[in-house]
Amino acid sequence: MIRFENDYTRGAHPRILERLLTTNKTQTAGYSVDPYCESAAELIKKVCVVKDADVHFFVGGTITNLTIISSILRPHQAVLSAITGHIATSETGAIEACGHKVITIPTQTGKITARQIRELLSVPKIVHQPQPGMIFISQSTELGGVYTKAELLAIKNVANEFGLPVFIDGARLGYALVSSECDVTLADIAKLCDVFYIGGTKVGALFGEAAVIVNDKLKCEFRYIMKQRGALLAKGRLLGVQFEEFFRDGLYYEVANHAVGLAMKIKAALQEVGISLKYPASTNQLFIKFTDAQFVKLSQKYTLMPWAKENGLTVARLCTDWSTCPADVEALIKDIKML
Amino acid sequence: MIRFENDYTRGAHPRILERLLTTNKTQTAGYSVDPYCESAAELIKKVCVVKDADVHFFVGGTITNLTIISSILRPHQAVLSAITGHIATSETGAIEACGHKVITIPTQTGKITARQIRELLSVPKIVHQPQPGMIFISQSTELGGVYTKAELLAIKNVANEFGLPVFIDGARLGYALVSSECDVTLADIAKLCDVFYIGGTKVGALFGEAAVIVNDKLKCEFRYIMKQRGALLAKGRLLGVQFEEFFRDGLYYEVANHAVGLAMKIKAALQEVGISLKYPASTNQLFIKFTDAQFVKLSQKYTLMPWAKENGLTVARLCTDWSTCPADVEALIKDIKML
Amino acid sequence: MIRFENDYTRGAHPRILERLLTTNKTQTAGYSVDPYCESAAELIKKVCVVKDADVHFFVGGTITNLTIISSILRPHQAVLSAITGHIATSETGAIEACGHKVITIPTQTGKITARQIRELLSVPKIVHQPQPGMIFISQSTELGGVYTKAELLAIKNVANEFGLPVFIDGARLGYALVSSECDVTLADIAKLCDVFYIGGTKVGALFGEAAVIVNDKLKCEFRYIMKQRGALLAKGRLLGVQFEEFFRDGLYYEVANHAVGLAMKIKAALQEVGISLKYPASTNQLFIKFTDAQFVKLSQKYTLMPWAKENGLTVARLCTDWSTCPADVEALIKDIKML
Amino acid sequence: MIRFENDYTRGAHPRILERLLTTNKTQTAGYSVDPYCESAAELIKKVCVVKDADVHFFVGGTITNLTIISSILRPHQAVLSAITGHIATSETGAIEACGHKVITIPTQTGKITARQIRELLSVPKIVHQPQPGMIFISQSTELGGVYTKAELLAIKNVANEFGLPVFIDGARLGYALVSSECDVTLADIAKLCDVFYIGGTKVGALFGEAAVIVNDKLKCEFRYIMKQRGALLAKGRLLGVQFEEFFRDGLYYEVANHAVGLAMKIKAALQEVGISLKYPASTNQLFIKFTDAQFVKLSQKYTLMPWAKENGLTVARLCTDWSTCPADVEALIKDIKML
Repeated sequence: MIRFENDYTRGAHPRILERLLTTNKTQTAGYSVDPYCESAAELIKKVCVVKDADVHFFVGGTITNLTIISSILRPHQAVLSAITGHIATSETGAIEACGHKVITIPTQTGKITARQIRELLSVPKIVHQPQPGMIFISQSTELGGVYTKAELLAIKNVANEFGLPVFIDGARLGYALVSSECDVTLADIAKLCDVFYIGGTKVGALFGEAAVIVNDKLKCEFRYIMKQRGALLAKGRLLGVQFEEFFRDGLYYEVANHAVGLAMKIKAALQEVGISLKYPASTNQLFIKFTDAQFVKLSQKYTLMPWAKENGLTVARLCTDWSTCPADVEALIKDIKML
Repeated sequence: MIRFENDYTRGAHPRILERLLTTNKTQTAGYSVDPYCESAAELIKKVCVVKDADVHFFVGGTITNLTIISSILRPHQAVLSAITGHIATSETGAIEACGHKVITIPTQTGKITARQIRELLSVPKIVHQPQPGMIFISQSTELGGVYTKAELLAIKNVANEFGLPVFIDGARLGYALVSSECDVTLADIAKLCDVFYIGGTKVGALFGEAAVIVNDKLKCEFRYIMKQRGALLAKGRLLGVQFEEFFRDGLYYEVANHAVGLAMKIKAALQEVGISLKYPASTNQLFIKFTDAQFVKLSQKYTLMPWAKENGLTVARLCTDWSTCPADVEALIKDIKML
Repeated sequence: MIRFENDYTRGAHPRILERLLTTNKTQTAGYSVDPYCESAAELIKKVCVVKDADVHFFVGGTITNLTIISSILRPHQAVLSAITGHIATSETGAIEACGHKVITIPTQTGKITARQIRELLSVPKIVHQPQPGMIFISQSTELGGVYTKAELLAIKNVANEFGLPVFIDGARLGYALVSSECDVTLADIAKLCDVFYIGGTKVGALFGEAAVIVNDKLKCEFRYIMKQRGALLAKGRLLGVQFEEFFRDGLYYEVANHAVGLAMKIKAALQEVGISLKYPASTNQLFIKFTDAQFVKLSQKYTLMPWAKENGLTVARLCTDWSTCPADVEALIKDIKML
Repeated sequence: MIRFENDYTRGAHPRILERLLTTNKTQTAGYSVDPYCESAAELIKKVCVVKDADVHFFVGGTITNLTIISSILRPHQAVLSAITGHIATSETGAIEACGHKVITIPTQTGKITARQIRELLSVPKIVHQPQPGMIFISQSTELGGVYTKAELLAIKNVANEFGLPVFIDGARLGYALVSSECDVTLADIAKLCDVFYIGGTKVGALFGEAAVIVNDKLKCEFRYIMKQRGALLAKGRLLGVQFEEFFRDGLYYEVANHAVGLAMKIKAALQEVGISLKYPASTNQLFIKFTDAQFVKLSQKYTLMPWAKENGLTVARLCTDWSTCPADVEALIKDIKML
């Protein structure tokens, strides 16, 4: 079986692994207070053009989300999220376990709009309801959508107007950045939110995410909350080593381009044979509408993730990543054309 | 500088890294539902002689502790711990952040006794006080102490009598198991508690701990709580790969023996020159009483962790681990003898 | 202004106050361990025909709900509720603050059905989602609906099938019990759920709710959790005194009948003049569809609670309670007829 | 039996009850947004000489403490308290249930000192430990001690130096204010801390505490957190009515003087017969060292609260309150003299 069900089926990009190998015997202090993490943080701040940001390294997405969100909100505050947001659908109530409600906003595409946020924030406040305390969006979204600069700016403006910080979950940020639909850079991202993270796990790292806190008010004693949530890796250096390699010479983008390029090839093949997609696709995720027969047929050779049933069709998710073999994609395309 | 301040200054044992390398391109499902984790779990259950245990893999100690403890306790319950226990001193209130008080028991050595526990549990219950709901001990302890089989049995008996589960934090379990003072095996540990974890991070893994739930009542839906706490690694396979390597042919013990052997050499050298230890030492940790002059002198070449001030002396912690070079130990011994 | 906006605009029924007065100087122990609470509990168990239930007294609804729910759920579990349920709409995230998600079920009437619950519980469990751990319903509902015995039985059966306890929020239980649409007694309620509470605050008490735990498994050390949540009143006797008076000779029903009788008179008057109700009304709450002109006109003399805007109409809530004066109702009816 | 074991064995001062009676039929809005609460708040602000303070009403001490503390602390922060503080000893882990550690400071008398706090705050911060975020003291203390103005000023100064707010638990504030050892007024209290509460439950109210937030930074959206914790009483007016009566013409002090006067008579009698006290006593609490024979003898007629065993003696707590009958005190004194 060739797995296309998600973007974390293999280990790490060979260059990441190699760096872990070559740095393995160097001694450092623990808990990310080491030259690798320092250097990675500098590289990230440079590429994001934010001299004064704080950079913190995590091992995975859920712990990043819950740590950041719970570090920001006061007890009665809630986080706004698309109803399809990772924190709303896929983290087993991690945010609620930290005491906070996730207020969801309907969406067809995974994206929410400044207008929706404004409407929600314009409702008169009453003491019987949790108060929105921050805005959570994903770039790219859980459905493969990509926010444009104009959309992000509009969201940031309404957030500023109501005094709420914006947090961008960048589990798949690399894939967004190289998307043909994307007109933002990391430097833009850093300007258009208060805190975000650059996903590694799904973009070729062995594991790891790099959180970037841009807003000064959100920096205070953040590491204490990381430690309290169990988010501070003893050998934090491992994360520094990986992100240093990612941003030393553009490997992060190279990985993303590899994956998105292959996804777009598959998309083209699907279009050729008249199989349609559930959502616009310009990153590494395709949500494909198969007939049951098609789905069963392909599933004999490839693992896809069943996502939804819709008008007798099976919507299935297909992901590419750093490790997707062009040969496997060729095989898949051939099989698609024979459906 | 040669670092002896803790047991996580370098990466992973070469065999661990190599296995990560050779398995890197194999595709698996995520979240530890993969053949490596399955195989590692089987090997661990075999060495622990517990067919029916559940094995779960974590990335580090704090998140293991908070997940296990919060999965067991009801809201009004507290965990009993030595006042020197990791959860009481070094996790930034991680247990309290999950809603539970840590009730501490005084100790000179890091160990607590069945008698102390019995006394504490025999106090009449009143509605104004949190109720002990489980017992937390560390093997080896944070001060390098090792519980004997008789001590563990006595604790388990009193725990059973009062209906409380026992949880053994095994962050340094390997070092305990090979200690000359230790008369328990993994199979004994599995019999003498309800849940424990086998530490990897401090014993030669790149990162990772393997939790073993022995008591059936503690198994139910544990993975949901892992996910909720951000403890379920997307590429869980990485943990399976490492623990498989550890327990395939005894590497775990080999690593531990290496470290403890070198620590005992240093201990002997200290005794030779009349420098005494604060606590009995039979594992990879030495708590050494230096004069200030001695400490300053050694600190020019070696990093030790200042632990306490005592009667004009500096107590400093020295750790060995899988990666400690015999040559560095020889150099250190030479320097000790010249103090 | 004559207030009809809710059912807690005045103090307590005169007989309740009088009992507080006559018992004021009697000394008792604190925290509801006193003869009044004991006697009230006995009376409640008798009227509910549940010899072995535990009865606990609270000061208000939100603290009752959060204490009961957090005493039952494990960390990863959620509570199922109508989307209109008090815990979902009106408690400022109290349940989330205890760590638990409220999973909401759509409803037009405030009631949820066994079929809806079954559908929700039949979805395959995945580790990324919080697990339903109990069912929350309100009798009468927040919209004035009343569950029939058959509906409650169906819910209890599906709950039993999936092993979930049912909790009935009875903030307005008295008003439900005397409703013409209601075919259950307190004894039925006690059989058809695992835990419920008998509301006092909204039914003529100065303040207070009586929780009845029927299911043995939910009783253990409940008072500790009450104390922890700040729910154990020092002079707990005050609650015992009130509920003793309620159930000594049927005062609780008398109060409810008074309120519902007056509400039905108003309902009849509205029907007479062709003003319709948003929801079926058989208890003390009417949700009335006014034109804006009608609403403004009435609001000069009466306070009603604006509830929603709908097709150019204002839906407003009107409540009666123990203290509603027949003369005020007469005046209101006269004014309604002149609209 | 005549009860002296605590200060909440009876209902409310007759004037309080009478006011509840005379206001019973007046309609108001709910949740403490009513003229009684407004008026009570104004009276309290006037007597405290703090025009801009926010005043909030609670039903009891534990819920006041947990709401205030959890509204102030960030997740990784802890509250400093005397080891004898109510939050440390008597609230079943209520603070921990909100996620925060209580860091305790040793004390013989229930009071902690500015010097102790400074020492604790001067320890270098490390990421592995929760950070002190506020200071909790009780006036009078749980052992009957009274802080002087100089002591409070010293604590406030060190708190300011380290940027920590001071919270004074005034469950028995009335008794402190009238103590012969006390040189502070309510106006002083309001200057010497950031938030405090004026206890009602133990000082003659039916139930209730009035929290006064002096520091602007602690005011924001406090009522939301109250609601979330279940601390917002539906008929909040009941609390306003009581505190209005307390501070309309000095009833609060009258009640306190009554209780402390009688306690001092008992203290004098004990001294006369050579029975000593465990702690200095100038409020309504006496901690008396009895021989077992004495304790048994008195316990035939009076309930005292056994507090501790000490050198073969039983330390027992005796409390007076608003309701203590002079005749009962005369009887007790007579019996003491016959011991």
